[in-house]
Amino acid sequence: MTTQQPVPEERRPANRGPKAAAHNRAALITAAREIFAVQGLDAPLSAIARRAGVGQGVLYRHFPDREAIAAAVLERNVREIEGAAAVTGATLAAVLGVVTWHQTQSAAFIGLLHAAGMNDRADTRAWSRKLSERVGNALRNCLPAGHRLSADDLMLAIAMVSGAATGPTPQERERRAVAAWRLLGITVGPVRSFEDE
Amino acid sequence: MTTQQPVPEERRPANRGPKAAAHNRAALITAAREIFAVQGLDAPLSAIARRAGVGQGVLYRHFPDREAIAAAVLERNVREIEGAAAVTGATLAAVLGVVTWHQTQSAAFIGLLHAAGMNDRADTRAWSRKLSERVGNALRNCLPAGHRLSADDLMLAIAMVSGAATGPTPQERERRAVAAWRLLGITVGPVRSFEDE
Repeated sequence: MTTQQPVPEERRPANRGPKAAAHNRAALITAAREIFAVQGLDAPLSAIARRAGVGQGVLYRHFPDREAIAAAVLERNVREIEGAAAVTGATLAAVLGVVTWHQTQSAAFIGLLHAAGMNDRADTRAWSRKLSERVGNALRNCLPAGHRLSADDLMLAIAMVSGAATGPTPQERERRAVAAWRLLGITVGPVRSFEDE
Repeated sequence: MTTQQPVPEERRPANRGPKAAAHNRAALITAAREIFAVQGLDAPLSAIARRAGVGQGVLYRHFPDREAIAAAVLERNVREIEGAAAVTGATLAAVLGVVTWHQTQSAAFIGLLHAAGMNDRADTRAWSRKLSERVGNALRNCLPAGHRLSADDLMLAIAMVSGAATGPTPQERERRAVAAWRLLGITVGPVRSFEDE
């Protein structure tokens, strides 16, 4: 009877082909986002592998260095914001709630993007501008006609809220981010991730 | 006749006692602020010594490491804001103009302070909080009674403008900072240093 019994999920080798590789990659990005949110961008990569339930070799196969995994987290963040904006009937407030959730989770990245703004490396600047343009396009699609703010104003407002969203814990960063939107007089829907929907 | 002629200022040895030491220290802080504003916080310290017109030995005598000179620049920035607020009849707009000048000059520091907000090192956090409290106290003194914003709101607004004041040049950072104050509906006087008065 035991001959047909499948190997329990947790006993299988971590990498078993393209499907498992995609699964591992996704798990590593989720783990990196959580670890960076709490410990900052210089968190040990071994903590990310452990949280994702894979060996460090698997991590390095997907992401050769820290910059590569940080870039993958930012790319997923932008994709989730685009996803939230693409929902039928998405309101500006709801999409800004998702943007704000990412800001409070990814405070570690804000210093990085600031540094990119000062950076001589044209490729880093171009990449950071491209991500920012994608967020701008997503917001433009749910900006009601005749809104007092232009899409450029909204992008500036997001940078402003990023500046406010500091603090040692995600909770404190969310409290400050929400207060910042209030100072700007901009209504922001529930602060939450888009995946949770 | 030439026996009484003083040695030209620029030919004198750089360090000639307590007065010259204070002069060198001040010149190094000014030079560091200018170099950091253009090249970022990882600018070579040799460029700072050269700009200040002193040898690297003099720099290291005053500032044992990069953190020490960065801290001295921030300390002087805060002191200038306090000075602007202490002027008789100082308006909130005028003091915020000085705050904004420092934000556009010291963009390199903003990432640093962001990192401090995430930082585990209690001494860095305490020091950054103390500087922030001094700016808060200076602003409180020129906040008109019944202003729509509390002193805490103003400090949050300053953090927000810091988030917006990014870009490769001080000019671009000033343009964005001024636009950010406008979004907040807060009037800000001329953007300038306090020493220039």
